[in-house]
Amino acid sequence: MTDTAQPARSHRRRYGLRPTMKDVAARAGVGLKTVSRVVNGEPGVTPDTERRVQEAITALGFRRNDSARVLRKGRTASVGLVLEDLADPFYAPLSRAVEEVARDHGALLINGSSAEDGDRERELVLALCARRVDGLVVIPAGDDHRYLEPEIAAGIATVFVDRPAARIEADAVLSESFAGARDGVAHLIAHGHRRIGFVGDLPHIHTAAERLRGYRAAMAGAGLPVDGSWIALGPTDPARVRADTERMLAGGGPAEPVTALLTGNNRITVTVVRVLAALPRRVALVGFDDFELADLLTPPVTVIAQEPALLGRRAAELLFRRLDGAADPPRRVTLPTRLIPRGSGEIPPQP
Amino acid sequence: MTDTAQPARSHRRRYGLRPTMKDVAARAGVGLKTVSRVVNGEPGVTPDTERRVQEAITALGFRRNDSARVLRKGRTASVGLVLEDLADPFYAPLSRAVEEVARDHGALLINGSSAEDGDRERELVLALCARRVDGLVVIPAGDDHRYLEPEIAAGIATVFVDRPAARIEADAVLSESFAGARDGVAHLIAHGHRRIGFVGDLPHIHTAAERLRGYRAAMAGAGLPVDGSWIALGPTDPARVRADTERMLAGGGPAEPVTALLTGNNRITVTVVRVLAALPRRVALVGFDDFELADLLTPPVTVIAQEPALLGRRAAELLFRRLDGAADPPRRVTLPTRLIPRGSGEIPPQP
Repeated sequence: MTDTAQPARSHRRRYGLRPTMKDVAARAGVGLKTVSRVVNGEPGVTPDTERRVQEAITALGFRRNDSARVLRKGRTASVGLVLEDLADPFYAPLSRAVEEVARDHGALLINGSSAEDGDRERELVLALCARRVDGLVVIPAGDDHRYLEPEIAAGIATVFVDRPAARIEADAVLSESFAGARDGVAHLIAHGHRRIGFVGDLPHIHTAAERLRGYRAAMAGAGLPVDGSWIALGPTDPARVRADTERMLAGGGPAEPVTALLTGNNRITVTVVRVLAALPRRVALVGFDDFELADLLTPPVTVIAQEPALLGRRAAELLFRRLDGAADPPRRVTLPTRLIPRGSGEIPPQP
Repeated sequence: MTDTAQPARSHRRRYGLRPTMKDVAARAGVGLKTVSRVVNGEPGVTPDTERRVQEAITALGFRRNDSARVLRKGRTASVGLVLEDLADPFYAPLSRAVEEVARDHGALLINGSSAEDGDRERELVLALCARRVDGLVVIPAGDDHRYLEPEIAAGIATVFVDRPAARIEADAVLSESFAGARDGVAHLIAHGHRRIGFVGDLPHIHTAAERLRGYRAAMAGAGLPVDGSWIALGPTDPARVRADTERMLAGGGPAEPVTALLTGNNRITVTVVRVLAALPRRVALVGFDDFELADLLTPPVTVIAQEPALLGRRAAELLFRRLDGAADPPRRVTLPTRLIPRGSGEIPPQP
């Protein structure tokens, strides 16, 4: 799927469909200050007036946070970016792209990291909302985003990137993980490999599951059986990846050792490169995600490259569409990946 | 200089020395709601009362932002981190370390990037303060931090990292740029080099200036002249670095080409590695900053390593000292660097 054309917009309004204090005042037939008192629980309002204002608030679905927004003229817009891991170089170009789009729209970008934890993601997202970000770009860690529904209803636009939202409908910008992984394995098969291993991230992560699915599809498409020992999913920390990779390369048990590997992301690839560098025999490697200096290694690493900057830019652009009032149904944009043969993926099977 | 011992603390108070609305109410002899009306410019306060409250505000140095802070019980503390470049992998472990310390203190971390621009740094810092961060860790891009004085006076603790604050006194955690660069160049001299080039960052950046100073000190210490064409300072973008490096390696003009290079940071090193890989002759290289996969390149790269995670951790620890009320004079912590010989720095001069 490629990027779809711009749909028609229902109407243009800054910050989406949020009712303002002015709307409440107009509907209740009172002044802005009166609404402010009611909203802030200040004294000095007759019960009758208070009831009229409350009715208007309920009817319009007005939310308290808006009061400060309306009162504070000339406030700089800001958007939040929730990353999954501050230390992963993959997100660096993505973050920078989101920042550039934000800057083009005169908005500040504030980031936070969920440290790959769903609870922390929620805490951080709600904290950013409380600090009045106008919108969010989220690389989700959690498996249930219904906690965002009240915020989205109140007008905080949210776009998911790299992985889709879980259990809610929201804009998302993704890469073609399934097809990219499938093509990477097909490339190894085309170079003669029959015993191919897959070292991936935790299986509940959307991208890891899609890449596993792609691996399986390529093997099945070539009529090749997959031994269970050829699949190792788990955290990307070097110790785990190293242990699983060494085990897969040693073989033992009924299955013969693999002659080629597909690695599920840049963090895993960087560890596996080290394991392979110490091996006496040559094992072919295709890594999902490009990474810095991949072409200067020995051998240079064949990769399935995403475009993290483009992911970030598209996500931020979708976000500002929403902030400008676009109210069409949530969209999913899927960007293609690109196989870059550099050497490691073209090594033939070693007898 | 190494990390100094803990000094005595004057007194412990959450959020430093900020007066609260309760303090103002007590001093003026009025209720909290009355102070709130005066602070928010709401009607319903007699001129006499208003004057008493304003006098109390002035006498105590009360700042408006505090009202929400006092009223909102149980609010999660948050600290801001202002980076200089979201895409530089050097800052990834630093950011993660700050985040971990913040989490240990039950605080959220929100980041922003100045994109290497002093005006943007200021805009972002003030925006974070307006969003009620309790403290800031700043990698400064600007050359004048006096804009922070009102915020620091109001109790927003600020610690600078990687580079010191400019024109104000504040806690700072730095690496030994001067000594590290000097030792790197001394290492090249010890391996026989006499014509050594330095490719560094923009000269107004503190770390770049210190590393240049270290380069000069090592050359002078060995009685070696420095030709002007052997120093190339400027932005770290690959095109500039490549052009300057190629020029320095080609020689031409009165000076002979260099036989070794010191590169000023990881961004520059990564570009120079590519330039050297294409050269027919071998040129020795010592890079300031370690970087991922440096040991897997051909030749493996000799570096002067900092410890970005430790820089981040120390800065965050200093920040929470201040937030806990430590009121001693600003401290400067300087962490040592470490020369890691891996191959590229031990290549002898090629005739």
